[in-house]
Amino acid sequence: MNELELIARLTRCLPVNDSVIAGAGDDCAVVDLGLADRWGLLKIDAVTEGIHFTKEAPARQVGHKALGRCLSDVAAMAGTPHHAVIALGLPPDFSPQYLDDLYEGINAHATRYQVAVVGGEITRLPERLSITVALLGSVGKQRCVLRSGARSGDAILVTGELGGSIHGKHLAFEPRLTEAAWLADHFPPHAMIDLSDGLASDLRHILSASGRGAELLAGAIPVSPAARLPQQSQHPPRPPLTAALCDGEDYELLFTVDPKQTVPLRDAWIQAFPQLKLSCIGRITSEPGVRLRTKNGLQTLTDHGFLHFP
Amino acid sequence: MNELELIARLTRCLPVNDSVIAGAGDDCAVVDLGLADRWGLLKIDAVTEGIHFTKEAPARQVGHKALGRCLSDVAAMAGTPHHAVIALGLPPDFSPQYLDDLYEGINAHATRYQVAVVGGEITRLPERLSITVALLGSVGKQRCVLRSGARSGDAILVTGELGGSIHGKHLAFEPRLTEAAWLADHFPPHAMIDLSDGLASDLRHILSASGRGAELLAGAIPVSPAARLPQQSQHPPRPPLTAALCDGEDYELLFTVDPKQTVPLRDAWIQAFPQLKLSCIGRITSEPGVRLRTKNGLQTLTDHGFLHFP
Repeated sequence: MNELELIARLTRCLPVNDSVIAGAGDDCAVVDLGLADRWGLLKIDAVTEGIHFTKEAPARQVGHKALGRCLSDVAAMAGTPHHAVIALGLPPDFSPQYLDDLYEGINAHATRYQVAVVGGEITRLPERLSITVALLGSVGKQRCVLRSGARSGDAILVTGELGGSIHGKHLAFEPRLTEAAWLADHFPPHAMIDLSDGLASDLRHILSASGRGAELLAGAIPVSPAARLPQQSQHPPRPPLTAALCDGEDYELLFTVDPKQTVPLRDAWIQAFPQLKLSCIGRITSEPGVRLRTKNGLQTLTDHGFLHFP
Repeated sequence: MNELELIARLTRCLPVNDSVIAGAGDDCAVVDLGLADRWGLLKIDAVTEGIHFTKEAPARQVGHKALGRCLSDVAAMAGTPHHAVIALGLPPDFSPQYLDDLYEGINAHATRYQVAVVGGEITRLPERLSITVALLGSVGKQRCVLRSGARSGDAILVTGELGGSIHGKHLAFEPRLTEAAWLADHFPPHAMIDLSDGLASDLRHILSASGRGAELLAGAIPVSPAARLPQQSQHPPRPPLTAALCDGEDYELLFTVDPKQTVPLRDAWIQAFPQLKLSCIGRITSEPGVRLRTKNGLQTLTDHGFLHFP
């Protein structure tokens, strides 16, 4: 059973109540807190030593990442983060200095986005450090962007450059909160997600929630310089485009807009965020599945993000 | 460095913002969500295989416990739980049936208290299963009970019977949400906490937050029948009173009220909750420290919950 099948199994019959606007299955849960004009956003996420970071990774960056992943999910809803709580699983040989540095990373990241860290819990975890963050945020009811809103013909856009995050970005990424808020103000996306599993997988989440398909332009996909670096664990090395399509942890925004907005959006974006690339990489189709247009014609992307040559 | 010292170190300089009413250091964080008459409550907690439950524990009970611990913390604020998110750390050899049963336990407990389970995250954890729950709740601004409100002369009361939770109750306890709400309606506590670390430790949290001390009556402490059972790991066996004072995971409510309310409260309690014991076990003092009155006179309780015979 893979992760998606497992999630589908566990979320089949979760209890809900009247205040659930969108439960499991989006970047954050959307809940009615009783406010006139805003929804609440709730997210939980964990990073674990040996899985999401190595023992050698600087503790400050691990803290930055642990909170940043949740911040990125709030960004994907065009929301604002407010409060974080943190559960540490702590091995017996922990170093107090490491924890200080870890919290320095968490706190600096929180301070930057006016997030209050309002509590936590420490439990023993014999083998490895684990940091679980839960984040409470909110979003204007008219601004909230779900995964499910993509329409046939929509342009598909992505911020930044993709692939090779393992070479450093996965510990040092900046969640796209400012950019997402700007988009909601000026060019409201129909659907949005943050790239944590990789473009090919995360696009599929939008398509599945929206009941649509997509056609991507291989030449338009922004391949990061890091995607061209050799990866020790890859034999044989993957082409950089495959890394851009399939590597996880880019934490960029993937979203769709009305195709008529593409040109004015790109013009305004360059003014607003001159340092951050924005790429139009394809379009939403009514036909399901994901097709990649290359110089050799159309190719199909399989379910797990890998290229399939038909 | 023990857990309390570690928590003190990590919570020294957490970032806050204008919406924090009570941050780290109470059963839940209390935050201003922008509602006229209610505060938000936020809590995170983890249970881990081999620490909080054994591999042999029924999965349904493990799920019950994982959510129940957070529910008990919301009860301690006299609050109402609304939404839960769950992070699973999953070893590679997990059984789908076990997970189904785990979620059945979580969902049944959530349904009972109208809590919606609105999402989660699954990460790999090679050695053992871990379940982290974050819970969002709310409480009327006038009803919220902190640890810090105990006054000199207050009566100290506790629900249920204490000690020996390891013999079963730690997996099957009922969070005292109904009782706490009833108390807030009829006999508002000055301070309240749920018993997770053990009476001696948790009372100290109230005293430290309130800047007070306490005198307990040994004969009034409700010793559970389970506290009298032998514990395999204890050589020599502890007296049942020590178990009642020092065992964790009772998940009962410990609270203080105006001493004039003690008699009417106990009379009304028997009508409202005939199945659940309520005991007046002592009083809050202006003198710091915890003293235990026994037939041999006054004894001092040390910081870590163990009896010290002066």
